[in-house]
Amino acid sequence: MYIGGDAPVSVQSMTNTDTRDWKETVCQIRKLESSGCEIVRVAVPDMEAARMLGVIKRKIGIPLVADVHFDFRLAVEAISQGVDKVRINPGNIGSREKVESIITAAKRARIPVRIGVNSGSLKTVGGKGGTGAEEMVSSALGHIKIFENLNFHDIVISLKASSLADTVSAYRLMASKCHYPLHLGITAAGLKLGGTVKSSIGLGILLSEGIGDTLRVSLTADPAEEVRVGKEILKALGLRKEGLEIVSCPTCGRCEIDIIGIAEKVEKGLKGMSRQVRVAVMGCAVNGPGEAREADIGIAGGRRAAVLFRKGKVIRKIREKDIAKTLIREVRKLRK
Amino acid sequence: MYIGGDAPVSVQSMTNTDTRDWKETVCQIRKLESSGCEIVRVAVPDMEAARMLGVIKRKIGIPLVADVHFDFRLAVEAISQGVDKVRINPGNIGSREKVESIITAAKRARIPVRIGVNSGSLKTVGGKGGTGAEEMVSSALGHIKIFENLNFHDIVISLKASSLADTVSAYRLMASKCHYPLHLGITAAGLKLGGTVKSSIGLGILLSEGIGDTLRVSLTADPAEEVRVGKEILKALGLRKEGLEIVSCPTCGRCEIDIIGIAEKVEKGLKGMSRQVRVAVMGCAVNGPGEAREADIGIAGGRRAAVLFRKGKVIRKIREKDIAKTLIREVRKLRK
Repeated sequence: MYIGGDAPVSVQSMTNTDTRDWKETVCQIRKLESSGCEIVRVAVPDMEAARMLGVIKRKIGIPLVADVHFDFRLAVEAISQGVDKVRINPGNIGSREKVESIITAAKRARIPVRIGVNSGSLKTVGGKGGTGAEEMVSSALGHIKIFENLNFHDIVISLKASSLADTVSAYRLMASKCHYPLHLGITAAGLKLGGTVKSSIGLGILLSEGIGDTLRVSLTADPAEEVRVGKEILKALGLRKEGLEIVSCPTCGRCEIDIIGIAEKVEKGLKGMSRQVRVAVMGCAVNGPGEAREADIGIAGGRRAAVLFRKGKVIRKIREKDIAKTLIREVRKLRK
Repeated sequence: MYIGGDAPVSVQSMTNTDTRDWKETVCQIRKLESSGCEIVRVAVPDMEAARMLGVIKRKIGIPLVADVHFDFRLAVEAISQGVDKVRINPGNIGSREKVESIITAAKRARIPVRIGVNSGSLKTVGGKGGTGAEEMVSSALGHIKIFENLNFHDIVISLKASSLADTVSAYRLMASKCHYPLHLGITAAGLKLGGTVKSSIGLGILLSEGIGDTLRVSLTADPAEEVRVGKEILKALGLRKEGLEIVSCPTCGRCEIDIIGIAEKVEKGLKGMSRQVRVAVMGCAVNGPGEAREADIGIAGGRRAAVLFRKGKVIRKIREKDIAKTLIREVRKLRK
C-alpha cells in the first residue's frame, strides 16, 4: 500500500472499539477489510492500548496506523509494536524534543508519520489564535520544518476542519506549498446523511482538482459506512473504476415498472463484484433507451415490461417480474 | 418563488406517482412540501394527465411544473390548466413550429419554460452524435435561439448527464455563454447512497463556483430523500443557514460515551427546527472542547459523562444519560 505519487487514492477508516480490547478491535478491522477498507487507524489513548498494537497488527491484513495525542511515549511504544504509520496531532504533543523522539523512532522503523492538523484541536489547544485555513497550514508547515531538520521526509499531511470551506481552502493552500502526500478528510462531519453530503462535496472538489492521495470520510455512524462513502466518492470521480456502477432513474409518473425495487435487487445481487460493469435501470422511453444503450447491460421500462440492451444492442423484451434476475444473469455472463 | 438573480437556490423534486391519479399525486406533493420541497414537477405522459394538472395545482402550496416530452399539445394543455412552469426536452418535441406553439402559450400565460437537455435523451433521439458537454450546450443554445426569436426570455436551462464530469463541464460552459438561470442536476444518478454522493460532488462543485440557481437531486428512492439531500448540499456550502447543524465526531477508541446514539437523538429531537443553530456532539478531549466551544451548544465527552458548553463557555458536567435531553433543552432555550 503506497500513498502518494501515482498510487491510487486509498480509502481509510478508523475503529471505534476500545483498542485495549484487541479481540473486538480485530473483529471490527476485519469487517472493515471486507467492506474494502485499505488502511485502518486505531486510537491509542494510553499505554495499555499501545501495547496491544502488536497483537492487533499480526491478526489483520491491512496497514495499521496508530493515532496518538498528548503523550509522545505512546507513539514511541506504538512504533516498537510494529505499526505501519503513526498519526500525530503536532499541536498537542508538546515540546520540540518530544516530537523529535517520535521522528527518531519512526525513522529507525522506516515508517511514515502523518502530521494531522485538526481545527478542533487547534481550537482546543488555543495557540496563536485563528483556526482557519491559513492557521492550519502554518501549523503544519511549522511541524514539517522540525521533521525536515531531522532529515525525515516520509510525511503525510492532513488539514481537517469541520467547516467545508476551511477544509477546501487549507488543502488547496497546502498543495501549492508542498509536495508531500495529502490525506483528505472533513472532521466531525456529522451523522450519516449530513456527513456523507459534506464529505462528498469537500473531498470531491479537492480530488477533482487533483488534490489528495488518501482519504477518510468521518461519519457519526458505523465505520463501514465511511468506507462505502469513500469508495463511492472515488467511483463518482472516475478515480476507481472497478465494481458495479448503477445508472438508474428516480422514476416519475411516466414509469410503469418498480425501478426502485429492481435497482435495489440488482445492487444487492451483484454486491462485491470487482470487475467494472455499468448497468442502466431506466423507467421509460424518454431517457431510458439512451442510457441503456450506453451501459454494458441495461433496461428501458415500458408497460409492466422492459427492453433489454446488451453492449448497445436491443436483445429482447422481458416481463417486469424477470427484469432484476435477467440483469443479474446478464452481468454474470459478461464477467466470463 | 423566484429562480435566478439574488434569489436563494431552491430545492426541487418530482413525484413518482401516476399523475392521472390526482389524489395520490397531491398526497405525495404535500409530503414533499412538508419535507421542505420548494418546487415540484410532475410527469405529463398523456392528455389525461395534462387535464389533471388544474386540480392538482389548486390543492398544493408550492409551484407546479409540468414535465412534457414528445407531444407539444401536452405542454399547451398543461399551461391552460394553470401550471407555474413547463419543462420541455427540446430534442424530443419535434419541429420548430411545435416548440413555437409551446412558447406562445407560455408567453400568454406569463410562465417560464425550462429547456431541459438530458444526455440520456440526446442518446435516445440520436441527432448530431456525441452526448458530451459541448453537444448538450449546443443543443440548449439552438433552442434558446428559437425562444429568443419569439422574444421570450423567461427561460431556465438544465444540462443533465449521468456522468458527473460531463454534467460539471456542461454547466460551466453554459454559465460562460449565457445569463439564464441554471437548474442543476445529475440525471439517473443511481440509488440512495451512490446517487447522494454523485449529486453532492457534482452540484457541490458547481454551486461552490457560483453556478446554479435551483437544483434537483435525482435518486432512485423516495422523492423526499431528494429534498433532504438537496437541503444538506446547500447547508454544507453555507447557502442555506437555517436549521440545525450537527458537528459530531465519528467516535474512536478514545470515546467513552455513545456519541452515535446521542447525536441521532439530538437530530431527531430537534427535527424541523427552522432557526440556525450549531450543536457539537464530540467524544473526547482531543477535538471536543474546541468544537464544543465554537458551537452554540456543545458537549465534549469524558468518562461516562461530558462537559456542557454554551456559546463558548463551560457550563457544567453532565452524566451520559442526560446528555441528549440536556442538549435538546439547551437548544430550545436558545430559541426564545
